[in-house]
Amino acid sequence: MDPKNPQKMRTMNPDIIIDGGTLLSMVDGHGPEHNIRILIKGDRIVHIEENDRNVKYPDDTEIIDARHGIIMPGLVNAHAHTAMTLFRGLADDLPLKQWLFEEIFPAESTHLNPETVYWGALLGCLEMIASGTTSVIEGYFFQDETVRAFHQAGLRAVISQGVIDFPAPGVMDPAENLKVGRAFIEKWLGTSDLIIPGIFCHSPITCSEKTLREAMEISEAFSLPLQIHLSETSEEVDEIMKKTGQRPVPYLDGLGLLHDRLIAAHAIHLNHEEIDLLSQRGVKIAHTPESNMKLSSGLAKVPEMIERGLTVGLGTDGCASNNNLDLFQEMDTVAKVHKAFSLDPVHLDAETVLKMVTSWGAKILGLHNELGTIEVGKKADIIVIDQESPHLIPLYNPYSSLVYSANGGDVKDVIVNGRILLKNSTFQTLDPDEIMEKVRAISRKIKT
Amino acid sequence: MDPKNPQKMRTMNPDIIIDGGTLLSMVDGHGPEHNIRILIKGDRIVHIEENDRNVKYPDDTEIIDARHGIIMPGLVNAHAHTAMTLFRGLADDLPLKQWLFEEIFPAESTHLNPETVYWGALLGCLEMIASGTTSVIEGYFFQDETVRAFHQAGLRAVISQGVIDFPAPGVMDPAENLKVGRAFIEKWLGTSDLIIPGIFCHSPITCSEKTLREAMEISEAFSLPLQIHLSETSEEVDEIMKKTGQRPVPYLDGLGLLHDRLIAAHAIHLNHEEIDLLSQRGVKIAHTPESNMKLSSGLAKVPEMIERGLTVGLGTDGCASNNNLDLFQEMDTVAKVHKAFSLDPVHLDAETVLKMVTSWGAKILGLHNELGTIEVGKKADIIVIDQESPHLIPLYNPYSSLVYSANGGDVKDVIVNGRILLKNSTFQTLDPDEIMEKVRAISRKIKT
Repeated sequence: MDPKNPQKMRTMNPDIIIDGGTLLSMVDGHGPEHNIRILIKGDRIVHIEENDRNVKYPDDTEIIDARHGIIMPGLVNAHAHTAMTLFRGLADDLPLKQWLFEEIFPAESTHLNPETVYWGALLGCLEMIASGTTSVIEGYFFQDETVRAFHQAGLRAVISQGVIDFPAPGVMDPAENLKVGRAFIEKWLGTSDLIIPGIFCHSPITCSEKTLREAMEISEAFSLPLQIHLSETSEEVDEIMKKTGQRPVPYLDGLGLLHDRLIAAHAIHLNHEEIDLLSQRGVKIAHTPESNMKLSSGLAKVPEMIERGLTVGLGTDGCASNNNLDLFQEMDTVAKVHKAFSLDPVHLDAETVLKMVTSWGAKILGLHNELGTIEVGKKADIIVIDQESPHLIPLYNPYSSLVYSANGGDVKDVIVNGRILLKNSTFQTLDPDEIMEKVRAISRKIKT
Repeated sequence: MDPKNPQKMRTMNPDIIIDGGTLLSMVDGHGPEHNIRILIKGDRIVHIEENDRNVKYPDDTEIIDARHGIIMPGLVNAHAHTAMTLFRGLADDLPLKQWLFEEIFPAESTHLNPETVYWGALLGCLEMIASGTTSVIEGYFFQDETVRAFHQAGLRAVISQGVIDFPAPGVMDPAENLKVGRAFIEKWLGTSDLIIPGIFCHSPITCSEKTLREAMEISEAFSLPLQIHLSETSEEVDEIMKKTGQRPVPYLDGLGLLHDRLIAAHAIHLNHEEIDLLSQRGVKIAHTPESNMKLSSGLAKVPEMIERGLTVGLGTDGCASNNNLDLFQEMDTVAKVHKAFSLDPVHLDAETVLKMVTSWGAKILGLHNELGTIEVGKKADIIVIDQESPHLIPLYNPYSSLVYSANGGDVKDVIVNGRILLKNSTFQTLDPDEIMEKVRAISRKIKT
């Protein structure tokens, strides 16, 4: 590939051309570049050049018209439970324990099965594609079905089998939970370019020391990510203190869990020493502000985490506590809520927030050499955001526009691994009517 | 009108029929009603009945297909500076004083003129129509042009002439500011069913005692609303304390400003006594959480205000500090941010939040007998929200769906005063391409 000789490139017969928008490559130090054309061949970006209207490409080249759009890396959702779309809006505005123990856990135990998880995950995939998410770090139950749904959707994902020391959907005997987790990994590892299987330990209070250690050993054996909910509530911290005499982060460190493939979601009730320890160990953080706000869990110290060198991504959490999977709205919220709590309007500026869902998100996936920025040689995980809407005009600063003015509905085109999943706001891999109808039918059984 | 005899109604030849959705009337004590048909004649709702597919209406009846939608009262934006769309995204993530004195004030003084305010207001109208707002309480400068824009758009509004004791856009001599305000009111009062002119005093620190008193006298003389920014920052409170020995609310009370037509925006830094005093006087509150969060101004004590009997509406503020006019996103934020600050997940439930933008908003407008709920005899200010999108499925609870899952882009139809402004997401009164192109041209002069 010779960037100085575009003519040579053009003979490569690109498979897809993104034609003529403003590029936010998210490469450090690169600002917005206007009137750009991007050539994609197979799963890779093969060329980036200034747009030139007079170039001809073979007839079978797919053209993505981005002339009135912003081109940027696809978004990484760092923490989701995709099939929980099934419970979107089922129970809101309730005290936390009532919500969890009287509504969500019973609904999960009664209504989750392979079929409902499959359709719920497909609905989540639809929503994520429509709003520009290209990679997801997710954990739940009946995960074979989640893999099936993501595979059909064409999204990239870390999909982890949930592990909890209680009877759980699909794993009624807790003694079997890690066997199920290991079998899940062995079944799916290496079967797809896009799916990385993993284990998701529910939390330090719902998993025993033994379970946590063994989950880590399995993850280490396969060099795979390990997910955990960490210090989401202050009650959880109190419980660990009472049980172990330590705060949750040193407790997990003592078990050997803190390493650079551990992805800790929420991470709200941490003191400075815990933040430093997480940073030293290279643990990755999935910040989920909308869910934390809605459940009144508190607010993670994200500006401090970033200052101490932690890699912080942005997640939506499940739809029972958000209630959507739109990372654009999550970006707007994260940029504003930290300003509100810190009383400092400079905290979490728009460009930093965009890094959380792109280049930093790719680091959390462990794929920062492949994803998270738009550069020649990287995987083609790219989205185009239409700017031809009243709420996105004028356009002085594309970073601001995406974070503070846009929402997921402004996404026009989505490409993952060189494959078009959304073109001109039309789904290319999934049938939205069928999926919405199936989930509607399931929902009528969940609540009549 | 005889609700028991729908056949009789049907002979009335309705002008518009909204056909077959779920109705959220927002009438206290009424829950969602399914499969509803609404008949509109002239500017009024004349009948509400269960849908019956076999009824025939005259060929010239406009049919709004709401079969997969939620029908609800149009939204009231309780605090906006519409033409500030011109400065959307011009300057973000800056310390407050730098933002205001180095960016926004200079941009206003250089670039506001009748033509730019006209096009900026039209762009704001486009955005508000597209996202389901039907009434706006707004204040700015060159307000003849804002009236012209709203009139063209067909939106309902309180449009107030800005008054500040400094040289201001269009009012270079502060001694003239109330003359301009009075002339504005005299020019527009009673000229339209939809436009109520008013005065907007910038704040207790930027307006003298004399200006505040005289503004109130003018408002009283015409029985019109008076708007003011109140205690947006703690510095403002300190300054009033230093100047008058009183906190801002008792200070304004001493001037006679606290009455039931005063609309106080922001209202953040208030103590309990001030909240009680505002409640006793019947002052209306316009809460603007997204702007307050983004500028790190603090968070108004809304749950306490509501408990003390204050009427609290929801506003977007101007696009320089939000950066959009989408009340659906504002609803999501207000429901979540108060849960985050109070650590109580029951605060500001979805139905309460919807009241803020409908029935309570109508009270702030002083039009609660005419608007804010869907009832026979009321003005036809109605919107339909499409529910056929992945992020709005399933639908267990329409209140939750609208507040926590929807965004402005889901609005499909907008009717104001019996006139259709948006039909099937297509603008009926404004030309979006022309307006967007004009504002783009203006923006190139603002920042090259």
